[in-house]
Amino acid sequence: MARALDVVSSRSALLILREAFYGTTRFDDFAERVGISEPVAAARLRDLVDDGLLEREPYREAGQRTRLAYRLTDKGAELLPVLVALMQWGDRWLQPAGPPVELRHVGCDEVVHAELRCAAGHPAPADELALTAGPGRGA
Amino acid sequence: MARALDVVSSRSALLILREAFYGTTRFDDFAERVGISEPVAAARLRDLVDDGLLEREPYREAGQRTRLAYRLTDKGAELLPVLVALMQWGDRWLQPAGPPVELRHVGCDEVVHAELRCAAGHPAPADELALTAGPGRGA
Repeated sequence: MARALDVVSSRSALLILREAFYGTTRFDDFAERVGISEPVAAARLRDLVDDGLLEREPYREAGQRTRLAYRLTDKGAELLPVLVALMQWGDRWLQPAGPPVELRHVGCDEVVHAELRCAAGHPAPADELALTAGPGRGA
Repeated sequence: MARALDVVSSRSALLILREAFYGTTRFDDFAERVGISEPVAAARLRDLVDDGLLEREPYREAGQRTRLAYRLTDKGAELLPVLVALMQWGDRWLQPAGPPVELRHVGCDEVVHAELRCAAGHPAPADELALTAGPGRGA
């Protein structure tokens, strides 16, 4: 987990990833929606590309020069449960007025949350967890 | 989520919380297991207490002066899905030798992971999510 934190522990990096999940792809939109300066946005986006969480893709609108779009890689997209878990915790403990946005399951329209389950499909609450050594112990 | 990140975006804060989940309660053990200096540990623990994630509790061993133990509050304990989601992402993408530790479900002994589900209990993969305005929109 310490290595994971080295990659994603910057506040603006996680907010940029959230915007990428919401569908943002353009540099200007990241800077504006995250509320950071263009130099900070450029540095964070570069780090996220270097770490393999986002990839750049050229695009061109009529009459404009070629620009770069930023899209989530599989590695970046798999951070979604982290972001959803963080959002639900913040909504519960830090948002007295209720959540500003909600993720819903397309089709049934129910609110989506992150939860712990075991590989057998059972819900796994905190008091039913045991910590064991894994195959990479000591690596 | 931005507010949640203000509380937990420090790398050492999340590593301290992980140790608290593993059962660490004593100041010296936090500093040693997280690998941070005592002044840094003291500052982070104070922040986590101020933010309501940990609470202090006096304890006394025979022949020793009274010391403080640190325990997770409900607010702190509910960050567990965030930490598990972050661990599983790090294990998959940053640990070529496999996970150093695993969380298992007591009883069935299967590995535990964080996943997205809707309130109706359906698994909710990324491509089945819709973003909607919540009750706290604009608050």
